[in-house]
This record gives sequence, C-alpha cells and structure tokens, in this order.
Amino acid sequence: MGQECIEFIAICRTLKLELLELLRTKYQLPQEALEWVDEMVEYNCIGGKLNRGLSVIHCTKEMAPDKILTLELKEKASVLGWCIEWLQAFFLVADDIMDESITRRGKPCWFRKPHVKMIAINDAFLLEAFVFQILKKHFGSEPFYLNLVDTFHDVVFHTEIGQLLDLTSQPLDGEVDLDRFTLERYRQIAVNKTAYYTFYLSVACAMFLNGVVDERLHEVAKNICAQIGEYFQIQDDFLDCYGDEKVIGKVGTDIQDNKCSWLVVQALERATLEQRKTLKENYGRNNPDAIAAVKKLYNELDLAAVYHQYEDEMYKTIAEQIEQMVVMPSEVFTFLVKKIFKRDK
Amino acid sequence: MGQECIEFIAICRTLKLELLELLRTKYQLPQEALEWVDEMVEYNCIGGKLNRGLSVIHCTKEMAPDKILTLELKEKASVLGWCIEWLQAFFLVADDIMDESITRRGKPCWFRKPHVKMIAINDAFLLEAFVFQILKKHFGSEPFYLNLVDTFHDVVFHTEIGQLLDLTSQPLDGEVDLDRFTLERYRQIAVNKTAYYTFYLSVACAMFLNGVVDERLHEVAKNICAQIGEYFQIQDDFLDCYGDEKVIGKVGTDIQDNKCSWLVVQALERATLEQRKTLKENYGRNNPDAIAAVKKLYNELDLAAVYHQYEDEMYKTIAEQIEQMVVMPSEVFTFLVKKIFKRDK
Repeated sequence: MGQECIEFIAICRTLKLELLELLRTKYQLPQEALEWVDEMVEYNCIGGKLNRGLSVIHCTKEMAPDKILTLELKEKASVLGWCIEWLQAFFLVADDIMDESITRRGKPCWFRKPHVKMIAINDAFLLEAFVFQILKKHFGSEPFYLNLVDTFHDVVFHTEIGQLLDLTSQPLDGEVDLDRFTLERYRQIAVNKTAYYTFYLSVACAMFLNGVVDERLHEVAKNICAQIGEYFQIQDDFLDCYGDEKVIGKVGTDIQDNKCSWLVVQALERATLEQRKTLKENYGRNNPDAIAAVKKLYNELDLAAVYHQYEDEMYKTIAEQIEQMVVMPSEVFTFLVKKIFKRDK
Repeated sequence: MGQECIEFIAICRTLKLELLELLRTKYQLPQEALEWVDEMVEYNCIGGKLNRGLSVIHCTKEMAPDKILTLELKEKASVLGWCIEWLQAFFLVADDIMDESITRRGKPCWFRKPHVKMIAINDAFLLEAFVFQILKKHFGSEPFYLNLVDTFHDVVFHTEIGQLLDLTSQPLDGEVDLDRFTLERYRQIAVNKTAYYTFYLSVACAMFLNGVVDERLHEVAKNICAQIGEYFQIQDDFLDCYGDEKVIGKVGTDIQDNKCSWLVVQALERATLEQRKTLKENYGRNNPDAIAAVKKLYNELDLAAVYHQYEDEMYKTIAEQIEQMVVMPSEVFTFLVKKIFKRDK
C-alpha cells in the first residue's frame, strides 16, 4: 500500500475515534455499543480501493491556486474524502442485503456475519448519519456548509433513485421483461446510482473547498461527471462478462441475476427476432447452459468490438467536452477519466 | 375521522403529488417507478394516528402571538407535521424488517408484500430522503432552514442510536442476559429511540416556525420532551402486557421477544434471587407457559400498582417542571402531556 493510502487511512481512524468519543460522552453509550460501532466502521469503511476518497484530495489540488495544496486544505479534503467513503459504505451495506450478496471486498458481507444479520440495516442508517455529524463538526462554520449538506442530500437522493430504478427494472415475480432493458433506462440507472456519488461528489467537494459554490458551475461539473459515470458503469458491465476473473477478483453474475447490463441492452438493439427469443429464454436463469447461451449470443453480435469502439468514442467525446469547458481547470476531469480509461479491473 | 384529520391528510397527498411531479420532470422516472413511489408513500405514510404530525400544528398555535394561527403558519406547520410523519414511516418500515414484524397499523408490514420484500430497505431510505427534499423546497429560503435541517439530522441520529441500543440490549445468540436490563439503559433507549422524534421534533418545528432558534431554549424543550418521552414509552411497555387487546388492537409480545421493557427492569429491581431465576428461565422464550410464568411474577411483584403510582408521580414531576419554565408558553407541553396522561391505548 502506498504512503498516500496509509496517511489517508489514518484520517479515517481519527474520525472514528472522534465519533466514538462523541458517542461515549454526549450520547453516553455503554461499552458494548461503542465496541459495536468501532467494529462496524472498521469492517465496512476500510478495505476498498479508496478511489472516491482520494479523488477529493487530487481534485482539490488541481483546483487550488498555483495547484498548491496547503496542509489545511489537504486535511479538509481528506475529511470530505472519508465522508464519501463512509457514504459509499452506507450504500454497500444496504445494497448487499437487497442483492443477497455473499462477499464484499473479499470478506463476507456485513449482514452475513452471524451476530449482525438485519441489524445491518440500522448500521447502514448510522453510517449515513455519521457522515452528516462529521460534516457538521468539521465544516459547520464554513460559508459553504449549507451547500455541502444540500449536495450530500442530493447525491444520496440520486443514488437511491438509481437503486429504485435498478430494483424495479425487472418484474419481481421472476419473469424476464426484455422491454424494460432500454438504453434510456440504462443511462438513468448508471447516472443516478453511480455517477453522482462516484464522480460528481468528489468534484463538488473540491469545488466547495476552493470556494466555488456557483450553481451554474456545479451544473457543468455534474454534466461531465454524469458522462464519466456512464462510461465507468459500461466498463463495469463489460468486465463483469469479459473481464479476467484473476484480475477483477470476482466472478460476474449479471446474466443470471437478470441485470439491466449495458451488454444486454446492446444485444437487444442488435438482435434479430430469433436472437431476441434466445435471450428471452436464457437471460436471468441461474444455470450454466443458459449463461453460456447468452455469452455465445454476445459473441455472435461481437459486443466486445462494439465495446472497444464505444470506449474510444466516449473517451473522445468526454475529452472534447472537457476541453471546451473554460470555467474550471480541466485537469480535474482529465484526471478522473485517465484513471479509468481502458481499465481492466 | 375528524375534519382536522381529513384536512391534514389532504396536505400529505399534495406533498406526494409535488414529489411525483419532481420525480417525473427533474429525475425523469418511468411510469412504473412513479407508480411504485405513489403506492409506497400511500401504504406507509397514511393510516397512523397522526399524533406527531398534528402536534406541530397545535404547538405552533400555542406559541403564536395571541395564539392566532394564520393560514400561512398553519400550512407551514402542516408540511412540517408531515415531514415528521414521513420520517416515522422511514423508521417503521426499517424497524419492521429488523424486528421481523408481521403487521403494522392493521395491514401486513410493507416488506411482507410479495412484490416488495427487501426493496423495502431502499424505500425506507427514500422516505428519509423525501423529507429533506420537502424541507428544502418548502423552507429552503427561511432564515431557520439550517437549524431545521440540523435538527432533523440530530433527531434521526438519536433515533438510530436508540435503535442500536435496543438491538444490542441482548446477545444475538439467543441467550438472555438480564444484567443488560438496567434502568439507565432503559432510559437511554426510550429517550433516544422515541422521545426525540415523537415529542421534541414537533416542539422544535413549532419553535422554528415562531422564530425561536436559540439553542438554550431548545435545550429546555429537549429536556422536558425527554421526560415526556420516557413516560410515554413506559406507558407503551405497560400496555403491551396489561392493556386491553381490543382497545389497543394488537397482542403484546415484549416478553417472548426478550425486550428491554420497563416491566422487566422494574421486576429485576424488586426480584428475590429465586424470582430472578424464574425470569432467567422464562423471559425471552416463545412458549405460553414461559410467558404465563413471567406475567405471574409481574403480578406477584404488583407491577400494576408500581406503574400507577409511577404514572401519578411522573405526571406531577413533569407538570412542576413545565410550570417552572418561564421562557416558553407552557401550554405547548401541557398539551402534549394531557394527550397521553392515563391513556389506555
């Protein structure tokens, strides 16, 4: 692990200790409840790739005058970075219950622990509430505090709307309704569920730390981040099927899980009536023959080539937009795109 | 249903329609997702006793100059009243999953509906997010907006902390640890989990609407509401065992559910070693003989008399405190207490 990550993780532990101190003194929590919070935060907030959190520090630096990140600015950016990481932990703890997932970051999902189970729902709520407590304590007297809180609310709302769109993208009776897998809906899920908290929130935090609260500028950032987020989600969906298990560290399950994946959307756009029938019969079924039939169809339609062409085009489009934008340092966005361009995990 | 309730419920429908309009236009949700939200809000926000929501209107009136509730003030109070009701819906949807409850307000719990299941977790999140959207839209330009948002955050946090204390008040391995049933812990659960959102939040909203943002005054209100809330929870626990099923509309299950109830706390304070052994052997077991043994013990210890004496004393104590308070109209609090004094449901 790099020095940057080690330093950054130290901030998480500091925030956790601050929180435990608050819970011990102001809320007078008994020892076993404090131990619960300690374990829960450790288990769920640490162990990820930290891309979102570290992005706040990088973006803040790119936007700073002369690109000089003062110690004070770095500390504030680190705290906001962890607010995003904790917010993500809140989403993931809850999503894993809803998706009935088994593992997360190489460990059993939190709700799978025998002493946790459905208490994980309250833990997810707590993680969200902790974020707003940290915001209040560390930024309550900043002129941009209200913008910050409103932005976190908006991003949470977008993410939950995205989750609703995802969860209702298929009938719950186990039927497969291919008509709901449209490019339009695909975009909505990707932008709401992923782009806002994964990209825009980091950029927005960096903007606030540099005194940029103008809503029009935030709209510009939001639009570019929405596209980067869509691109990121498409990569995720591609890698779920075509990625190297050894590199990604997990086995894809989108096909059997009946997911509104970019691949199935593209397949439907290109399928003959016969091929659509194949999809209808095999998508969303958890048996090896059905999964193989869908993958064979993807190969017949040469979706890997469609993807690679798409990736190049999308990169060009986003780069052009970043270039045309004159109101903010473009490095903020090129940094985000370069980090994910042609990624294989 | 009284005219007041009918008028009040009309406001909920207005808020729901505003929200659906926002989701349709700004978030471009497809029809089936809009229908989902519509059904989910109807199912979970309407059908309760509306005590918390209506309290905002009553408290606002008691605090208003010459106790005149202008139409504008009434409308604002109604919107905040529904924010509390929706917040409660968020807690209840989630609590019912965690407690594995069967029914709520005479209908199956939301997560028990076959088309909902664990999507209810995201629905709970959405209900919370809707509250902050409503606050922003209706009060975003008020001078007390920031106080309002911070107060809602604080109340949510207290409630979740209370839920954590409640859920961890017994070991999860099915063991019964009577040592955790202390009066201290009982108070903490009652005040955090119930008092804040049930009493203080209504009063705080009424204070804000009348321009009272002074933190010291809010502390005074918080302290009185904490006691009213504790009293309310003790009534709840008493009625769970001693209430008339026909009047309450449900069968109590605190004994078999191993709950940190006021009755078991009082029993432990008074029990001989022999009686403590009886509790240890029978509390938290779901069989009729065990439940009967606990109830027999409660009767031996004459907990009904303890309760009635407690109720009179608590009423006096709270009334005295209200009287001594000079910074706010005492009617706000006497109204809240009178509503619940000697209630039987």
